[in-house]
Amino acid sequence: MDDLMQPGQLLARGVSRHLLGYGFVSVEEFVPSRGLRIDVMGLGPKGELWVIECKSSRADFQSDNKWQGYLEWGDRYFWAVDSEFPTDLLPQETGLIIADQYSAEIIRMGPETKVPAARRKVLTHKFATHAARRLQAFRDPRV
Amino acid sequence: MDDLMQPGQLLARGVSRHLLGYGFVSVEEFVPSRGLRIDVMGLGPKGELWVIECKSSRADFQSDNKWQGYLEWGDRYFWAVDSEFPTDLLPQETGLIIADQYSAEIIRMGPETKVPAARRKVLTHKFATHAARRLQAFRDPRV
Repeated sequence: MDDLMQPGQLLARGVSRHLLGYGFVSVEEFVPSRGLRIDVMGLGPKGELWVIECKSSRADFQSDNKWQGYLEWGDRYFWAVDSEFPTDLLPQETGLIIADQYSAEIIRMGPETKVPAARRKVLTHKFATHAARRLQAFRDPRV
Repeated sequence: MDDLMQPGQLLARGVSRHLLGYGFVSVEEFVPSRGLRIDVMGLGPKGELWVIECKSSRADFQSDNKWQGYLEWGDRYFWAVDSEFPTDLLPQETGLIIADQYSAEIIRMGPETKVPAARRKVLTHKFATHAARRLQAFRDPRV
């Protein structure tokens, strides 16, 4: 299965594993609003929402011209990159995770900007719906 | 896989499929509070919470002496039973679903008693966490 995954998906897997150590669960390819797709959305034990964008290469980062549109959908924003990535390229005021397919490490937390309560409620409901739908597809493949 | 499932789990599968038609996602064996385990917890498009207990036989129902403890964890409470079940046994003031392993039908909605907002918030967060953890176990079996 590893062979079928894209580099960004492998980073996402390592990130998701690492987040469990913080008590965070996560989903991949989360859609907070139409036209947006967050690589990894983490949900913390107190309802915290973390947005993590996985970048497999310099080109992958440089072609992303809409990452700032993701800031408002989480309390914290992180980049997840591999150990070869030129991290000087990344904006300082964001979080940084170094990952591989097996695990990850949070290098820099970045600032916290709390999502307003009404939006948090909507996002938590969307997160629950996203996770349950995909879970059901595994549990009951004929759905 | 069907052969490995218990009768109650087969009912749960049919129920979960049917709930999708109402825009509800669901998880199985949801723990709203320590010591309690709900067979199917449904989450609706507006955040509605439905508790569904699956009973595969008269004996299964009659040995359940704590179902009333589940009423407070959802806006609605349903029994899910197969078409052979003697439904006269079931309390009238609860919802009723007739199910098999492929699908289900809601026969009686039962009364609605809204979960207080603070509890709904906690339960939605627990639902999200439950679904995401189990989804991750499918996606990444080595977790």
